[in-house]
Amino acid sequence: MSCDFLAQALPGVQKLSPYVPGKPVDELARELDLDPARIVKLASNENPLGPSLKVIEAIQAELKELTRYPDGNGFELKRALAEHYGIQASQITLGNGSNDILELVARAYLAPGLNAVFSQYAFAVYPLVTQAIGAEGRAVPAKSWGHDLDAMLGAIDQSTRIVFLANPNNPTGTWFGPEALAKFLQAVPEHILVVLDEAYIEYAEGNDLPDGMAYLAAHPNLLISRTFSKAYGLASLRVGYAISSVTIADVLNRVRQPFNVNSLALAAARAAMSDTDYLIQSRHANDHGMAQLEEGFRKLGLSWIPSKGNFIAVDFAQEAAPIYQALLQQGVIVRPVAGYGLPTFLRISIGTAEENTLCLEALAKVLSRG
Amino acid sequence: MSCDFLAQALPGVQKLSPYVPGKPVDELARELDLDPARIVKLASNENPLGPSLKVIEAIQAELKELTRYPDGNGFELKRALAEHYGIQASQITLGNGSNDILELVARAYLAPGLNAVFSQYAFAVYPLVTQAIGAEGRAVPAKSWGHDLDAMLGAIDQSTRIVFLANPNNPTGTWFGPEALAKFLQAVPEHILVVLDEAYIEYAEGNDLPDGMAYLAAHPNLLISRTFSKAYGLASLRVGYAISSVTIADVLNRVRQPFNVNSLALAAARAAMSDTDYLIQSRHANDHGMAQLEEGFRKLGLSWIPSKGNFIAVDFAQEAAPIYQALLQQGVIVRPVAGYGLPTFLRISIGTAEENTLCLEALAKVLSRG
Repeated sequence: MSCDFLAQALPGVQKLSPYVPGKPVDELARELDLDPARIVKLASNENPLGPSLKVIEAIQAELKELTRYPDGNGFELKRALAEHYGIQASQITLGNGSNDILELVARAYLAPGLNAVFSQYAFAVYPLVTQAIGAEGRAVPAKSWGHDLDAMLGAIDQSTRIVFLANPNNPTGTWFGPEALAKFLQAVPEHILVVLDEAYIEYAEGNDLPDGMAYLAAHPNLLISRTFSKAYGLASLRVGYAISSVTIADVLNRVRQPFNVNSLALAAARAAMSDTDYLIQSRHANDHGMAQLEEGFRKLGLSWIPSKGNFIAVDFAQEAAPIYQALLQQGVIVRPVAGYGLPTFLRISIGTAEENTLCLEALAKVLSRG
Repeated sequence: MSCDFLAQALPGVQKLSPYVPGKPVDELARELDLDPARIVKLASNENPLGPSLKVIEAIQAELKELTRYPDGNGFELKRALAEHYGIQASQITLGNGSNDILELVARAYLAPGLNAVFSQYAFAVYPLVTQAIGAEGRAVPAKSWGHDLDAMLGAIDQSTRIVFLANPNNPTGTWFGPEALAKFLQAVPEHILVVLDEAYIEYAEGNDLPDGMAYLAAHPNLLISRTFSKAYGLASLRVGYAISSVTIADVLNRVRQPFNVNSLALAAARAAMSDTDYLIQSRHANDHGMAQLEEGFRKLGLSWIPSKGNFIAVDFAQEAAPIYQALLQQGVIVRPVAGYGLPTFLRISIGTAEENTLCLEALAKVLSRG
């Protein structure tokens, strides 16, 4: 028996390459000896508005209870979500971010010998959670950077247990419409769990995209994954959720850690749901920022993938890594997506008007040197 | 193919019974229409002192960054831990509570056909994380309510990959000394991962218990699991950590979720580490509270299992469930441990002097009716 604790890890685990997050501001500040306050981070699709005041108040009110365990059932947050969506609380699984949801699904339904289907250029966590189990991940070639739903149907076989869909998709920002989703759900075998990741839906709702919730009643094999990390501005706190049939929620709630969502996240998410103005502002600022970046790219002669998210993948028609590095030197952090098979692109999160301007200026400077 | 998403879950997952947490104060208040402020909760081994002011300040300072993702590498907290323990940061794995650590270990090293060894009356999460994988959990009969380390060695076979030890043990409070640990580590095959769960060590350090950290250098198969949820008073925020060889830490860091520990937890844990007074007070209050409860039990003619934790398992020499229920009616929440095979016991967390008094008064009232 080997005493090498790498060799002894499960085969899927041994081959895992950790997820590469956006470079943190503090890390760049340390590396380049820059003032953190002057760094613009547009790398992680975070909400540029800063936190909602209602959220801050809710957290303040909760601080006296710091020594207590969270409510492991998330009673109040589930009640608020159930009311908001007109569903039962027993259909909800709360997660430590929606990353937790994606992992729970894999851990409940995948095993070595089984497979999950997702799209080329899909969120890196789908292959990661699949591989950690030792199951097979099947990336189906994209069509115009987005999901080729027909080809994904074609990739399903007897060993498929999960299909991951993202709408809009990260990192490309592509999307599919209601008819395409309806057709897919009709065609997919009903024993296959369809995980519809709507992490960015609040930026796109009513804008040619289906609302996954509307399909739940007719499709007990559908699970909608959403998050408070983006439009609700709570990335730091880690809170996401799944809405599904009661049966699937029951299974995921058995697998999850008893206290997977912390108390401040539970309180903050409830407050964020009540702050409709913040959500409207987030959407509004994103629409404006997207237009600002597109206009800037146009002036720089760059093309991009049209996006319904809070980010945009811009094409430099040359290897983008040196441009990423040069932007870092300017104190602007964006996201390389070579790991997604998009080596000529960078993904830029929509910032405030000021951040977008600084990013475009830095880009102009870097490209003019080219 | 079945469309029953319970039947389709992995065999181990189907049989999972969720962890039963201590009853939350709000839940009891709702059920019995009681004032939450008058409820005494001594059910979850929480720190009764309330939060450290340094922690509150650290959280306040972090609130402006709520929209940002946490530092997925936990750079600053790992640096503080590394300095504190004189180890390398690369030996550390941070967890969403130490529950996360226990799960990561199981997910990295267990699979169907393999097994994990732990003691009878050990923490419920060891069998849960083992079963979720579909691996076999081997509970070794306890000796005087505590670990029978020789019998645990005897239970190891070719398919064993992990041994879980807890010192002190929860829910019994039992412990083993330095010689017993040294002998065990010498005898255990060196390819077997020994997970030494020291969640309660800060209440017991230097008091006949070994400091697991001292054995790391000589035993690359040892992993120490610790938490900020107990003596550091941060149960709400979910932060724990493992210290191990660099190889094991590398494996666990691949398996963990990229942002498993939230930003406020990272900041709070650093602050908690710097607040030595709080830790000293926690230990002091616990020693006094333990003596107070023991004295109370003595007067009530009850026996108990001597404990080095921040809780004590008291024996009613009759089925304890009705006593638990009667205490709830008095607004006192303690912890039933019938699920641990201790049906005549209740586990009572050490509270403040006032809480302990209220608990003993309620107990006296309930028992006098008997």
